Amino acid sequence: MTPKLVIASRNEHKIQEMRRILEQAGIHVELVGTAEFPDLPDVEETGSTFAANAMLKARAVSEFTGLAAVGDDSGLCVDALNGMPGILSARWSGSHGNDSANLELLLAQISQVPADRRNASFVCAAAYASPDGTEFVVEGEMNGSLITAPLGDNGFGYDPIFIPTGHQITSAQMSSEEKDAISHRGKALAALFALL
Amino acid sequence: MTPKLVIASRNEHKIQEMRRILEQAGIHVELVGTAEFPDLPDVEETGSTFAANAMLKARAVSEFTGLAAVGDDSGLCVDALNGMPGILSARWSGSHGNDSANLELLLAQISQVPADRRNASFVCAAAYASPDGTEFVVEGEMNGSLITAPLGDNGFGYDPIFIPTGHQITSAQMSSEEKDAISHRGKALAALFALL
Repeated sequence: MTPKLVIASRNEHKIQEMRRILEQAGIHVELVGTAEFPDLPDVEETGSTFAANAMLKARAVSEFTGLAAVGDDSGLCVDALNGMPGILSARWSGSHGNDSANLELLLAQISQVPADRRNASFVCAAAYASPDGTEFVVEGEMNGSLITAPLGDNGFGYDPIFIPTGHQITSAQMSSEEKDAISHRGKALAALFALL
Repeated sequence: MTPKLVIASRNEHKIQEMRRILEQAGIHVELVGTAEFPDLPDVEETGSTFAANAMLKARAVSEFTGLAAVGDDSGLCVDALNGMPGILSARWSGSHGNDSANLELLLAQISQVPADRRNASFVCAAAYASPDGTEFVVEGEMNGSLITAPLGDNGFGYDPIFIPTGHQITSAQMSSEEKDAISHRGKALAALFALL
């Protein structure tokens, strides 16, 4: 029987991304999202770091489901904003998950920041918690810089304004495979699954 | 003749605050805002610190008017946002000077931050530039913490959600005199005028 792992997320984009990364790594695990556990209480992301929030999610889901769980927390850290939106990336504009509002707000905030000071990094922390008490967290990063208007339809969140270092296109202009190979989430999940 | 000093601001709130502070210090200077110089080009705030932006404004206005000028830059630095909105305080929500939108956005961003991690500081840099080449910058700070809903009608900007350390009311619930005595701008201007 394929082992089952719960992903502490209702975000279909994220779950699909994880499935791809697992497949490419040749790991056979059945991933299920928390949409399959409708009674699961919302996990409050009260931590002040990506790692703390990732672990809060993994632990809560593992405790509730009795299964091993992976929680991740990720975001965009913009140098000119002292590393913000950071852990608040998904609700930067106030309400949770409004990608276009978040992106528009960020662009407006840094509209006067010159091109050579638009460095940013995507950061992802991935945490694992299992009923046998095993717990750990790993982090991955993708460095780059921000452009002034969105380009590309792949990806999600801030991908359309992020050009990874060494590339000429945004991470929203890359194919999924291209992005997974260099992305913060790709690196964090690769590290996590390597440890399992 | 009373000496004339140009305040590099079109913000009437700010100019009135400066007039009060000067009066209370017993300093007799005629303050004029840049509204009196309609042809003055907009000064781009391209600095990455309060001090740099304050000096950009003071220098530009002094050069244009041929008079001594004071520029200030101030903002609210929130610990949970790594010191942001900081120099972007006045345009945090995207467009410049929309106090209520800025405040509402900030409240939404920190809505999940617990009470004991809601520390913040108002910071003001005040810069002086005169045609004789004299230039300097000073800074003032007011520490406090943020509440979850606005209180008080005095003040402006983020005052209604800011409780100064050692006080039980927001800076928007204080009288102008009370606020000037402890405020970041009061301290910075007192230091600046002491140096003149």
